[in-house]
Amino acid sequence: MTFKRSALTEHFLTDLVEEAKQLLGQGKTADYIPALAAIDPNQIGIAVCFNDGDIVQAGAAQTPFSIQSISKLFTLVQALKLYQDELWQGIGREPSGHRFNSMVQLETDHGVPRNPFINAGALAICDRLQSRLSAPTFQLLELLRKLADNPALHANNQVARSELAHGSRNAAMAYLMKAFGNFSNPVEQVLHSYCHHCAIEMSCVDLAKASVFLANKGISFSGEAILSADQTTRINALMATCGLYDASGEFAYEVGLPGKSGVGGGIVAVYPGHFSVCAWSPELNPVGNSLISTWLLEQLTDRLEVSIY
Amino acid sequence: MTFKRSALTEHFLTDLVEEAKQLLGQGKTADYIPALAAIDPNQIGIAVCFNDGDIVQAGAAQTPFSIQSISKLFTLVQALKLYQDELWQGIGREPSGHRFNSMVQLETDHGVPRNPFINAGALAICDRLQSRLSAPTFQLLELLRKLADNPALHANNQVARSELAHGSRNAAMAYLMKAFGNFSNPVEQVLHSYCHHCAIEMSCVDLAKASVFLANKGISFSGEAILSADQTTRINALMATCGLYDASGEFAYEVGLPGKSGVGGGIVAVYPGHFSVCAWSPELNPVGNSLISTWLLEQLTDRLEVSIY
Amino acid sequence: MTFKRSALTEHFLTDLVEEAKQLLGQGKTADYIPALAAIDPNQIGIAVCFNDGDIVQAGAAQTPFSIQSISKLFTLVQALKLYQDELWQGIGREPSGHRFNSMVQLETDHGVPRNPFINAGALAICDRLQSRLSAPTFQLLELLRKLADNPALHANNQVARSELAHGSRNAAMAYLMKAFGNFSNPVEQVLHSYCHHCAIEMSCVDLAKASVFLANKGISFSGEAILSADQTTRINALMATCGLYDASGEFAYEVGLPGKSGVGGGIVAVYPGHFSVCAWSPELNPVGNSLISTWLLEQLTDRLEVSIY
Amino acid sequence: MTFKRSALTEHFLTDLVEEAKQLLGQGKTADYIPALAAIDPNQIGIAVCFNDGDIVQAGAAQTPFSIQSISKLFTLVQALKLYQDELWQGIGREPSGHRFNSMVQLETDHGVPRNPFINAGALAICDRLQSRLSAPTFQLLELLRKLADNPALHANNQVARSELAHGSRNAAMAYLMKAFGNFSNPVEQVLHSYCHHCAIEMSCVDLAKASVFLANKGISFSGEAILSADQTTRINALMATCGLYDASGEFAYEVGLPGKSGVGGGIVAVYPGHFSVCAWSPELNPVGNSLISTWLLEQLTDRLEVSIY
Repeated sequence: MTFKRSALTEHFLTDLVEEAKQLLGQGKTADYIPALAAIDPNQIGIAVCFNDGDIVQAGAAQTPFSIQSISKLFTLVQALKLYQDELWQGIGREPSGHRFNSMVQLETDHGVPRNPFINAGALAICDRLQSRLSAPTFQLLELLRKLADNPALHANNQVARSELAHGSRNAAMAYLMKAFGNFSNPVEQVLHSYCHHCAIEMSCVDLAKASVFLANKGISFSGEAILSADQTTRINALMATCGLYDASGEFAYEVGLPGKSGVGGGIVAVYPGHFSVCAWSPELNPVGNSLISTWLLEQLTDRLEVSIY
Repeated sequence: MTFKRSALTEHFLTDLVEEAKQLLGQGKTADYIPALAAIDPNQIGIAVCFNDGDIVQAGAAQTPFSIQSISKLFTLVQALKLYQDELWQGIGREPSGHRFNSMVQLETDHGVPRNPFINAGALAICDRLQSRLSAPTFQLLELLRKLADNPALHANNQVARSELAHGSRNAAMAYLMKAFGNFSNPVEQVLHSYCHHCAIEMSCVDLAKASVFLANKGISFSGEAILSADQTTRINALMATCGLYDASGEFAYEVGLPGKSGVGGGIVAVYPGHFSVCAWSPELNPVGNSLISTWLLEQLTDRLEVSIY
Repeated sequence: MTFKRSALTEHFLTDLVEEAKQLLGQGKTADYIPALAAIDPNQIGIAVCFNDGDIVQAGAAQTPFSIQSISKLFTLVQALKLYQDELWQGIGREPSGHRFNSMVQLETDHGVPRNPFINAGALAICDRLQSRLSAPTFQLLELLRKLADNPALHANNQVARSELAHGSRNAAMAYLMKAFGNFSNPVEQVLHSYCHHCAIEMSCVDLAKASVFLANKGISFSGEAILSADQTTRINALMATCGLYDASGEFAYEVGLPGKSGVGGGIVAVYPGHFSVCAWSPELNPVGNSLISTWLLEQLTDRLEVSIY
Repeated sequence: MTFKRSALTEHFLTDLVEEAKQLLGQGKTADYIPALAAIDPNQIGIAVCFNDGDIVQAGAAQTPFSIQSISKLFTLVQALKLYQDELWQGIGREPSGHRFNSMVQLETDHGVPRNPFINAGALAICDRLQSRLSAPTFQLLELLRKLADNPALHANNQVARSELAHGSRNAAMAYLMKAFGNFSNPVEQVLHSYCHHCAIEMSCVDLAKASVFLANKGISFSGEAILSADQTTRINALMATCGLYDASGEFAYEVGLPGKSGVGGGIVAVYPGHFSVCAWSPELNPVGNSLISTWLLEQLTDRLEVSIY
């Protein structure tokens, strides 16, 4: 309630990263594709971006990593800009209570994914983008380059190809939605975009910058209106209830900020009115979220008392 | 972020209640027990309690109604005081993604309810209370009387008996937890408490007062520490992700406050740092939350810009 | 098609039992109640009863054991006599595709159990019997004593009490059916009968005799019409598709006779037109059917070519 | 048991077909593809083929129709010849208890379909055939032409294309199996074969002839050994427990013969030791089996007392 910005210093973050090192080795890097399994697990970074664009960082905060499902946050932003409330025809806004890649619920719900942050929901979002954009991946990159003020951002093609080669379950979800009439474009085309989105590489600093407009009623640190204040609030609400798959409740309980995680080990979180933050470390806990990133964010909100609840 | 208390006046609330009247007739009162079905559906009330105890109210804000599942919020408070973090052995903290009385998930999860706000979770909480309290219902009433500063609060025995007579599904859930070793006390005894908790009658004013400590780091308006700031934050987080059953995501999206609903038509919500609010109107939407109470809270947060996200 | 009765001799069965001994130790006796776990696992028996009442037997064929779910076959017989086709209101006739004590399907199917041989279905049958019989357990015993021509048959009260004490899951299923309006009598009363039925003790010879009317168009070996030819055919069809829980397909594939198993280690099977057979050995395979009884019946039908298919 | 072949005459079948006409209009032809929806619903045919090749027939018994899922019976025959018992790695033999195209169970069972007669199972069979055959559809046609002694049999390409165009759910199932490592060949290639198999057109007479080896220990009416007696028995057992999707229990209860249905309106059934029969009429009941074909087979087994149970 009475957040003291002066407490959130580089020194503070550096201490957190140092303490976090003792947790190294307790998780397990994503291993479903070789390109992710090969990463050095002993990396920890964190960056905070205040609403005015000021950055505070520690550790490997400038090392690019695979953003993976964090891309779902930005494709949602793109889609909401294009479709407004029409977007929610065929895509829900409820926590799923199931694994991020569950088919069970998708069938029970007649092909309507529970929310845009589980795989099926993100595939539906990519399908909608495909219908209105000429080159979805390029245009997502353009948005991210602008938001992060980093023209060098790109997708790792080797990772993208590897994702595609291991994408049978995503194909199954897309075809099931198609069977229910909730998917318009060719599955292969959408999977291609989806896998390239996941393969985009960004650093903690990039991601903190790119998401700070969510803490600032939709205004980027450079002053551009990305979304309306209302849309921003609602995206944060979605992150709060659905952003960490079936650990969203736990994340709300322990961290208390809206957030979005990726199997690359990154987690973005937002403290509305003040700052965004991105933590990164490749080792994952059993539900697929970065063990150390979660711990860093828990400590940050606990010590600074910045839970929104 | 910059909440102007001066905007939240009796006049403001009265206008909301007047506007809400045009929605009367669009929902349906709970009808699974005669005692609830018999209520006059054309009632609307709302009360706000600020952290200092000031009350603003409109409509039928002083009419007592059946709190039903809102009792789950207060039994959780009781249980957390008694058990601290030990409470979470055998009770989850995740949104369920299923109806409030689903057996499917309870079996899949080996008798561990997803959270304390679905029926199975609340039954587990009542089981834990039964193990440590001599007279759980009486002691819950004592807590509520103190929090609401209203010694007249009581349970409606006719409603409680009616609930018990229609309690086969709750019995099924309790026995299933027992089969998994996650329920210690006799099922009948716990159901008796549970049904009496649901049958407690309180007004919007009572409930707003009783829950304002959740907006004030655990301190009641009379200055008593009910829970720690930390516990309070976490209860709010649980309400935010799980408080409205399988419409919790939608409530976060549209209202943006932690809340807890009951089939009696009441919804309690909390704006941390500032106030608690209780809206009431008996007609329910298809997922079982009060249609008009939801609308009132949407309008309130929208017009005053008090979403936490 | 051209069954040679002369091949089914005591010598033939004795050889089977001898060969089966090498499988001892590969399964595991039921251990959910102490009374069953305490049994000597090294017992093997088999008895065949021809339609004319002639018995061929080998091994421990006269040792009484707990019939457990085989009782479901005889309560179905009782209920079909009392209710005729009306019995099928609220009870299905399809294989379940789930474990014998699954709650998931029972909820999905709105409280209608898939068939009378899974626990929920047998509980529903007992509920129907309770509505029309003054003393269901006593009357089941009377039926079995007559069919087996053995007035000494009785239920083991220690086993019945032990079942009742571990009966929370059965209570959960009964209450769930009650919640759906598909259960009329007090749950406790029906569970009491159900557990006593399971605790009845019979030998292979008793069970082969008691079920031979199912091989003989409904006529017992003493010439009494127990059911019509038509009802008999249909009960056999139910055993063929549902009699061995979620191993019914495998049993049809490997054994090829309608059958009913129990966790006491017994399996009854019927070769229509010719004989009934009961095999017994306490050690169970992972799906809960007697490992050695299954093997004995496989060998019997394989060597004598008596699959019905 | 004492089947009188002399009772199964053309006159007998003609009477059945006449009686069945009063049921016309009570069902609904398959409408998921235009090519099937366009069929004249007022057609009824039945043909019996005795083990010696003699045919008795009535109604439209020589009109070719789309065999649809009846093809699953013959691809299983092909696959069993090629793989023997190895076939069952990755394919179950249990009734599913779910709709024929359920994804839920396929995920729960880690990509292993319950049996070869539900869609997922048949797709897995086609995948196995693809691995060992140069031209699966052509080779299936060759087998059917030989078995039915009808060189003119062919697949309807318009139907096949239409199936492919509506094949998203089948694609979803194939990709889900691939995700679990239980599908080797390219999904598109296997779907192509699968859809052409379904689009093969045969008459009641063709199908009765083609399946009579299942009633004759694997020997075709022309004397060729198609499968061993043992394999034949087991295929019949699979039809008996799984052949009519989630109405298999009902079919066993009412008809009492192993059978396999298709949404084209045909049902093949086998009376081991004596004859095969195929009934056809396009209108389906709610579970997707021909309403009149089911009734014809019920009447046939009832009047001739030829239930196997």
